[in-house]
Amino acid sequence: MNDAREVVVLRYGHRPGRDDRMTTHVGLTARALGADRVIFPDNAGQSAETVRDITGRFGGPFAVELREDQKAIVRDFEGVVVHLTMYGEQVQDVEGAIREAVGLDEPEVPGEASPPRDLLVVVGGEKVPWALYERADFNVGVTNQPHSEVAGLAVFLDRLFNGEELDREWADADRRVMPEATGKTVVDADGAGDGERDDDGRGDDPVTDERGDDDPAEDE
Amino acid sequence: MNDAREVVVLRYGHRPGRDDRMTTHVGLTARALGADRVIFPDNAGQSAETVRDITGRFGGPFAVELREDQKAIVRDFEGVVVHLTMYGEQVQDVEGAIREAVGLDEPEVPGEASPPRDLLVVVGGEKVPWALYERADFNVGVTNQPHSEVAGLAVFLDRLFNGEELDREWADADRRVMPEATGKTVVDADGAGDGERDDDGRGDDPVTDERGDDDPAEDE
Repeated sequence: MNDAREVVVLRYGHRPGRDDRMTTHVGLTARALGADRVIFPDNAGQSAETVRDITGRFGGPFAVELREDQKAIVRDFEGVVVHLTMYGEQVQDVEGAIREAVGLDEPEVPGEASPPRDLLVVVGGEKVPWALYERADFNVGVTNQPHSEVAGLAVFLDRLFNGEELDREWADADRRVMPEATGKTVVDADGAGDGERDDDGRGDDPVTDERGDDDPAEDE
Repeated sequence: MNDAREVVVLRYGHRPGRDDRMTTHVGLTARALGADRVIFPDNAGQSAETVRDITGRFGGPFAVELREDQKAIVRDFEGVVVHLTMYGEQVQDVEGAIREAVGLDEPEVPGEASPPRDLLVVVGGEKVPWALYERADFNVGVTNQPHSEVAGLAVFLDRLFNGEELDREWADADRRVMPEATGKTVVDADGAGDGERDDDGRGDDPVTDERGDDDPAEDE
């Protein structure tokens, strides 16, 4: 989202079939809420394909990688590592320190912001090794309640970027949704006049229609 | 979370099997991030059971309902209806108006806050009827990008409550997670000394362990 640093989301662990949809949603949430890249385990090819497809249609830049070496990625990451876990410190207590660590803080003296550093956000899927807790610069809980890794990632990114991710622009998109009070309007991304207005009451669920799902073709 | 008003999340539509995990995560996210109640379609009994189980162990109050009459719930709701959809107005543009509509705004004159009203947050699953767009007081997009209904709900609730949901207390819990920089510590909810410390490096994923999943027994 910003040239100064890269924010990478690593989905740690993936069970094909069972986790396809959650992993896809991790990737799409990372993209929509300001991360620059998502790394999936190499057995999550279907999720990768869906996220790439959405990026192709709705814009980027956003990169999707499949990697086998999850442990090495975390160990060797040159930057700040945040691990989202319900056992971690409360996000409201540490978000300021994280923003400062990666240079997203508001400087007290203009021009004296902390230097930008890359950030790896690790989202646990199946079992994660204890070494991850030890390697992480911050183990962070978005609440200490059991809920959803997708929800935790979303709240974390929104707080990390202080809401600025909601205003980002998308490059190389084929289409763009026009926000409106009542309606479902999609236009060509160049804003040209041949927009498609879909408020005919057919009752499609627009999110399901476009959301990357297990089988994206099914909903279209 | 607050006696003045009830915040209810309605999961609109559910495909058994395929949607079990997403529906469960909608319910757990609603609970963790400050809603008072979730309503699932009546074919989502498995998700309801999981959310109730988590509430029994980690505390409440939080209610889970199964209802057949999704359309009637929306139509007859006495309060403000928010529909989360990627076609809606941008959350950053309308969150102030929504907070004011339900009395969660900061009054300019102390004591002159808007009156509290109940809030129904509708999260689409499969196809939602066009009437929902028309009935909703606010159609809201957490970005106008396709991503995840769980992520959208999470960001919406965090912004609705202005982060105060992260500090809520839980009643009638069996257990409580102690937030910490490195570790996985669960204590009895009364804070007594027989806490169970689980940092033996077995490498369990604590979120998966406790998260309501398709089959909660599988992870335990």
